[in-house]
Amino acid sequence: MKLTEILGIELPIIQAPMAGVQGSALAIAVSNAGGLGSLPCALLSLEATRRELAAIREGTDKPFNVNFFCHAVPSEDPAREAAWKKSLGAYYKEFGIDPGGVAGGQGRAAFDAAAAELLGEFRPPVVSFHFGLPSAELLARVRSWGATVISSATTVDEGRWLEVHGADIVVAQGLEAGGHRGMFLSRDLTAQLGTLALVPQLVRAIRLPVVAAGGIADARAVRAAIELGAAGVQVGTAYLLCPEATTTPIHRAALRSEEAAHTALTNLFTGRPARGIVNRFMRELGPLSDVAPEFPLAAAAVLPIRAKAEAAGSGEFSSLWAGQNVSGCKEVSASVLTRELAGFATEQVSGVQR
Amino acid sequence: MKLTEILGIELPIIQAPMAGVQGSALAIAVSNAGGLGSLPCALLSLEATRRELAAIREGTDKPFNVNFFCHAVPSEDPAREAAWKKSLGAYYKEFGIDPGGVAGGQGRAAFDAAAAELLGEFRPPVVSFHFGLPSAELLARVRSWGATVISSATTVDEGRWLEVHGADIVVAQGLEAGGHRGMFLSRDLTAQLGTLALVPQLVRAIRLPVVAAGGIADARAVRAAIELGAAGVQVGTAYLLCPEATTTPIHRAALRSEEAAHTALTNLFTGRPARGIVNRFMRELGPLSDVAPEFPLAAAAVLPIRAKAEAAGSGEFSSLWAGQNVSGCKEVSASVLTRELAGFATEQVSGVQR
Repeated sequence: MKLTEILGIELPIIQAPMAGVQGSALAIAVSNAGGLGSLPCALLSLEATRRELAAIREGTDKPFNVNFFCHAVPSEDPAREAAWKKSLGAYYKEFGIDPGGVAGGQGRAAFDAAAAELLGEFRPPVVSFHFGLPSAELLARVRSWGATVISSATTVDEGRWLEVHGADIVVAQGLEAGGHRGMFLSRDLTAQLGTLALVPQLVRAIRLPVVAAGGIADARAVRAAIELGAAGVQVGTAYLLCPEATTTPIHRAALRSEEAAHTALTNLFTGRPARGIVNRFMRELGPLSDVAPEFPLAAAAVLPIRAKAEAAGSGEFSSLWAGQNVSGCKEVSASVLTRELAGFATEQVSGVQR
Repeated sequence: MKLTEILGIELPIIQAPMAGVQGSALAIAVSNAGGLGSLPCALLSLEATRRELAAIREGTDKPFNVNFFCHAVPSEDPAREAAWKKSLGAYYKEFGIDPGGVAGGQGRAAFDAAAAELLGEFRPPVVSFHFGLPSAELLARVRSWGATVISSATTVDEGRWLEVHGADIVVAQGLEAGGHRGMFLSRDLTAQLGTLALVPQLVRAIRLPVVAAGGIADARAVRAAIELGAAGVQVGTAYLLCPEATTTPIHRAALRSEEAAHTALTNLFTGRPARGIVNRFMRELGPLSDVAPEFPLAAAAVLPIRAKAEAAGSGEFSSLWAGQNVSGCKEVSASVLTRELAGFATEQVSGVQR
């Protein structure tokens, strides 16, 4: 069965869920254009998730995807948190922040029984996970209304694991991809593969449909991915300048700048490696740090610095997630972009000019 | 003009020059099959280079490529060398090697006037360089007999530099590629791009033909690369099991093993980052080390350890160069492999089975 048949969509284009830079509007636009729109829930409260799901049900009758992180929730570790705050001390000072007043906390939700309960009300046709899969019990609840389950593999081993543990579709997340690496079986970054190497090896290793992600910026790259054996593609970065995305002006400016040519994997913003545009914070403290607490506990201590910097117009302490090819970022509607990615010529629109 | 027209070859397949694992035999087989065979000279004396060039002239009347490293030759640095040897001390002890008897030296030749002089006798139709380009004067000598000049770019900036400084063709060496990264404008590994992201961005940025390299293991990947805008491909790893390669039995065994699924960039063997199968040496001392001397000065101190280990049947201290996709490695003639990569079905041959 083809990916479009499995998902009930017209075009083999999945819009990558991108927590923090998009909500229901982007998902609706992509689904209505014939792709699979995605709602990322990792940064949403249950109430906000409910509102967004209602908005999607209101905005489209096409299939859509709801995405959750499914990491093991770490115990708070005061000693490690203190060390992390200490390493941020110079920034607290620079921005006039009282370290004693900096709140802790998880910051990002992991999929749990309450989320499953809420999903049950909306019965979304597709549910995707990042960082593996939730427990068998939670997964069974998602399956109870017939949802198709997607998760990401960054290695061949992870693809095999996902096949055995109940995914229906595997996203091959190549090293070029922006945002968090979905890696969950190993922390060794050297084991991460480029998209061109990962896709055909996953296609050969598992029977599930493989969706290519990472570095895909235009219709030619979509065709290349399909030539490699992918059943479709997942594209994130290219959507970041669309009006339907909630990408901040600072993030948009960074994507349009020369700086966007240099991204790196950093764990400074959350504790897990994620690809973003290199900025002062990444240059000075990382991009990878041994001091950053377990995901997602690193995030809270950085937030007030980010807030102060952004208030002053600076993205030097923001997570400017982006993949290794921003040439597909266009200030056009997500609908136009989706159809262009699928190879439908629309009006002549030009990408970011440099 | 198409790549095949520029190079005077039938198939858009360049066999990647791989110093240490091949000589004229592989180059001859690939050129005779219609691709562009390459002779790597970095590990050859002038005399050996002369013999190999004579063998190629004898073995084929088709175009071929001669490859040189063109790094700046570093001054020896006794303090750094001593620190490096000290960090290898436990291995010297383990293998019963007297550190005092370990020779130093460059180990790898950089293209120079003597090499240019020798080349002038043979007037090879194609000359390729790794780590940038040689001086304008040396490059002019290579051009004097009409040679086509190729070099590798690992970033868009490097591609632009090569275009300005006189390359005719640019190899887009994606992060998946085995062996030495051709990087020469920056030492920052985070700036290195996956093949799928690098190729289209280079194609857009420069006017020269771009050849895709890194992770290309079969005809589908070749078609994908061409879909991305590449004028052709350069393939290395897939040739390593061919009978015409001089890959050692230990290296061949590693390529056939499960271990080959995990490669990493390491500077332990030469001082510059190169991708190889992870082994004990890389796990224990790296894979990247701040202690390793400048390229190529790190190599000499490791050689006796490698020799002792290999004599005992172990590849744990060998540079087991390989890219991120060994699924294309086949024990077939380089001629068959070349034509298969170009999409010509030949007899059914199966790749490495796992």
